[in-house]
Amino acid sequence: MEINGVTIDNTYAEAFPTWICRIIITAVTQEWAFKAATEATGFATSAIGCPCEAGIENEFIPGNETPDGRPGVSILICASKKKLKEQVVERLAECVLTAPTTAVFNGIQNAEEKIPVKLHFFGDGYEYQKEVGGRKCWVIPIMNGEYIGEEEFGMVKGVAGGNFFVMGENQMAALMGAKAASDTIAKVKGVITSFPGGIVASGSKVGSLKYKFMVASTNEKYCPTLREKVPDSKVPAGIKAIYEIVIDGLDEKSVAEAMATGIKAACKVPGVKFISAGNFGGTLGPFKIELHKVL
Amino acid sequence: MEINGVTIDNTYAEAFPTWICRIIITAVTQEWAFKAATEATGFATSAIGCPCEAGIENEFIPGNETPDGRPGVSILICASKKKLKEQVVERLAECVLTAPTTAVFNGIQNAEEKIPVKLHFFGDGYEYQKEVGGRKCWVIPIMNGEYIGEEEFGMVKGVAGGNFFVMGENQMAALMGAKAASDTIAKVKGVITSFPGGIVASGSKVGSLKYKFMVASTNEKYCPTLREKVPDSKVPAGIKAIYEIVIDGLDEKSVAEAMATGIKAACKVPGVKFISAGNFGGTLGPFKIELHKVL
Amino acid sequence: MEINGVTIDNTYAEAFPTWICRIIITAVTQEWAFKAATEATGFATSAIGCPCEAGIENEFIPGNETPDGRPGVSILICASKKKLKEQVVERLAECVLTAPTTAVFNGIQNAEEKIPVKLHFFGDGYEYQKEVGGRKCWVIPIMNGEYIGEEEFGMVKGVAGGNFFVMGENQMAALMGAKAASDTIAKVKGVITSFPGGIVASGSKVGSLKYKFMVASTNEKYCPTLREKVPDSKVPAGIKAIYEIVIDGLDEKSVAEAMATGIKAACKVPGVKFISAGNFGGTLGPFKIELHKVL
Amino acid sequence: MEINGVTIDNTYAEAFPTWICRIIITAVTQEWAFKAATEATGFATSAIGCPCEAGIENEFIPGNETPDGRPGVSILICASKKKLKEQVVERLAECVLTAPTTAVFNGIQNAEEKIPVKLHFFGDGYEYQKEVGGRKCWVIPIMNGEYIGEEEFGMVKGVAGGNFFVMGENQMAALMGAKAASDTIAKVKGVITSFPGGIVASGSKVGSLKYKFMVASTNEKYCPTLREKVPDSKVPAGIKAIYEIVIDGLDEKSVAEAMATGIKAACKVPGVKFISAGNFGGTLGPFKIELHKVL
Repeated sequence: MEINGVTIDNTYAEAFPTWICRIIITAVTQEWAFKAATEATGFATSAIGCPCEAGIENEFIPGNETPDGRPGVSILICASKKKLKEQVVERLAECVLTAPTTAVFNGIQNAEEKIPVKLHFFGDGYEYQKEVGGRKCWVIPIMNGEYIGEEEFGMVKGVAGGNFFVMGENQMAALMGAKAASDTIAKVKGVITSFPGGIVASGSKVGSLKYKFMVASTNEKYCPTLREKVPDSKVPAGIKAIYEIVIDGLDEKSVAEAMATGIKAACKVPGVKFISAGNFGGTLGPFKIELHKVL
Repeated sequence: MEINGVTIDNTYAEAFPTWICRIIITAVTQEWAFKAATEATGFATSAIGCPCEAGIENEFIPGNETPDGRPGVSILICASKKKLKEQVVERLAECVLTAPTTAVFNGIQNAEEKIPVKLHFFGDGYEYQKEVGGRKCWVIPIMNGEYIGEEEFGMVKGVAGGNFFVMGENQMAALMGAKAASDTIAKVKGVITSFPGGIVASGSKVGSLKYKFMVASTNEKYCPTLREKVPDSKVPAGIKAIYEIVIDGLDEKSVAEAMATGIKAACKVPGVKFISAGNFGGTLGPFKIELHKVL
Repeated sequence: MEINGVTIDNTYAEAFPTWICRIIITAVTQEWAFKAATEATGFATSAIGCPCEAGIENEFIPGNETPDGRPGVSILICASKKKLKEQVVERLAECVLTAPTTAVFNGIQNAEEKIPVKLHFFGDGYEYQKEVGGRKCWVIPIMNGEYIGEEEFGMVKGVAGGNFFVMGENQMAALMGAKAASDTIAKVKGVITSFPGGIVASGSKVGSLKYKFMVASTNEKYCPTLREKVPDSKVPAGIKAIYEIVIDGLDEKSVAEAMATGIKAACKVPGVKFISAGNFGGTLGPFKIELHKVL
Repeated sequence: MEINGVTIDNTYAEAFPTWICRIIITAVTQEWAFKAATEATGFATSAIGCPCEAGIENEFIPGNETPDGRPGVSILICASKKKLKEQVVERLAECVLTAPTTAVFNGIQNAEEKIPVKLHFFGDGYEYQKEVGGRKCWVIPIMNGEYIGEEEFGMVKGVAGGNFFVMGENQMAALMGAKAASDTIAKVKGVITSFPGGIVASGSKVGSLKYKFMVASTNEKYCPTLREKVPDSKVPAGIKAIYEIVIDGLDEKSVAEAMATGIKAACKVPGVKFISAGNFGGTLGPFKIELHKVL
């Protein structure tokens, strides 16, 4: 299969279940909502070494879609059930409650499972309850005025690790292709790309052949500089750089849509030559998102 | 004391020792160095609930100040000695090694104490050593080409918790005053402001009067909405919002310089009325940075 | 009438007809389309002293709404019929054709009147025709490869000078209110705000009382510092700063929608106290957009 | 000559005299100074079709280098003597006086020739004089408070058209090389790059071979797609895209420094293969800036 002259590999992305919270952060202007959300979703690229995976999902301007009518963004935080509660509490407490003019709302109202996030104890008895946009919130007196927040957040089983590879005839072509893809995916609802700029430069394999103490190591089969050195390299001829776009989302459909729109965007960038996806032979993840099907 | 009609309180900021690593991240362009640095310094506002405090310190464009001559930024990571090593390793491994086109260098070459960060095991035996700009680096084959990094990072005892309060006649005046301060401090060498946008909206006190299980709670004496409700409010008459700028730095001199330049910037913003600073009566921190002295 | 505690004046914005071109600029990534569009719409705040009024209307990411499927933005250029042709030609030739990776398409296909923009002569005979997304385009060989562009642009009679005033208890409150409004209007289709950041700090009246050679001068009735000095000041009590949001759009409906959404956004910002609009007693412009009706 | 494996052509940039004004724009925060400056320097890429050439030269944060101590930027406006006065007046009146919180100061105090810019008539008699930072300024009451500005601007004979070509093995490599160059040049004092993003995609030659009415047309000798079609192509083998960086500056030394730092930055980007410069055989411009000399 080809799009715009770019070969699309006949393969699939293998993805995994993850628990996800969706949190709406509003502020006085778009800028301040983004600042809070950026801090709250940092150090959250991969569950391997970070305490969670997180990213900005959607932006709300004009504010008529947010409970308090202000501009805002939604973020997704993804982790195991146990870690998710701790991460939502800490990230809201340290990175959003501390940020200028913010308020926080539950982004999945109809979820069956919920996480309690009792930030109102921070109010030391001066806090009180108030309804905002039909939501039961706590108001906490703070230095810049009053922080407003819901304290129950829906949690759903979503999909982590949706992915595709952007391969280029050189590094800058691959990078700009990956950037075009990541910009586009930023507009898809229900998904995030948790890595810096939405792009992974160093895809990994499980474990290590040489160093037994490593839980993950470079995926040598996809390293262009090792193409002639490893026996079974998967780097196509003429490919000098590969970036992986990794997508987490609320459901398989959103992740598939993000993959499709991202791949199409990458294929518009000159010098992008090949698109593939990462999987483990289908042995690990229950989700198999086939490139040829979603496109 | 007054600057530009703004009253400067005759008080001091009380600050504490912290261990700090300084890391130089370079990339193909300024944009990509910032993306990596932003991810690597996220979820790092306060040591109370985050695993460390971190932020972007300085930018290097043109790249003639970086070991590889490319554009870059330096970041500071601040924590206890034990936590610092773990945080530097994880943040470099998950947020910088994974980011497009990055390289990483030690930002404090003459430090007596050093942290080893052995990312080269990620190369699974394909890694090799190379000198870059006179630094001994490891080159790790990855999907986008080769990652280059030093693996020993100087660690020094610095200063955490330098601070001042920007008080405004209303919230937007205080916010813009704090923003002007934080923009300015971003240009001071040797310091970071770890909170979202460099600004704290919800300063805290140690512990809680009402909830014994809380390690920190709202500093009700500085809450404008509680001015008439708490007996010993420190909110001056006419003040409707307060932001705190918290500064960590490599030494007391840099923190003091950042405080001075930040305060002067805030005092230029119309509606900013009062500047103060936070301390614990001098009982906790060894550093006392007096506002009237630094200005 | 009040919104969120902010008084909405019972008045109307008086607006005028203008000729408008809508141009779609695409590029390899969103960033490069914006850079070209920003340059092409600069020096274009007010028809009084600038050769036209212009601004960015809409963004297209993902690119599936653009003729070539790439990310892009649309801009509006507004002027008299005669000046419009000249301005479209010069701005496309100097600011878009010269920008990296751009292509240009007609943004109003069903317009009755059209402007010819014969950039293909720049190709000096090496240019050729090609269909892109069903559009008849010229391809011009240039240094970075090939520029692609349509050469006929629809021109419609639109509306210039839609407006409202954001009045604040101090300057920073008014500024942030105006910013919230302008951010929101940026998402409304069919309109632009041509002033810097979408905001006017120095509204004017026609002519001058004192200097006969001036075609426009400060609107002293709306100057807060002159409130006690001019006999018939329109500055409400307690107002210290006023910003005007000026909106040009393809039709009255779009302009009215932009006014409504912008006013609602401004009213969410603390310290914004009063909203009004500018008119000339209804003697000049055929469009009267009443605040109470659109809200 | 080679830098980092990139061939540097043994040639020179041919540049021309131009009159230049340097204007310092300050505002409440860096953001608002940039917004005003961006509008004021738009539609100003090339003197061929734009009324002037203009760009942002330098930023001042902290504000201790500006007359009013606020953050700011300086811009350069370049044109013939006659046009320069008109352009400075119109761009300040329409794009800076209208922008939130701005003040304006003369950026070349010791110039022998000066342009009068009498914006104070806009005050309609309510304006008054005031000294700010040792400068004689006019204060004009406007809607957002008071605009402050000097009204005499130094004008010097500078250099326009300093340039170099970044040639890449494909378009994205050349673009990122040009971007790295332009980012770097943005930090050099005394210079601007007036084109979108600082980069020219469509270099031109004087006149046209085929269309006698054209004053400029594509420089076919530097068009990669015409390499096999024109007899004397200057596109080196293997080059698929060329970007030109055009630099205007206050003197030859600044322009030469910008060229040197920009070329070095471009040579760090993988896929950049060749650097050259544009000239007219030395017959037109008095300045010949040789690549091998400046590097």
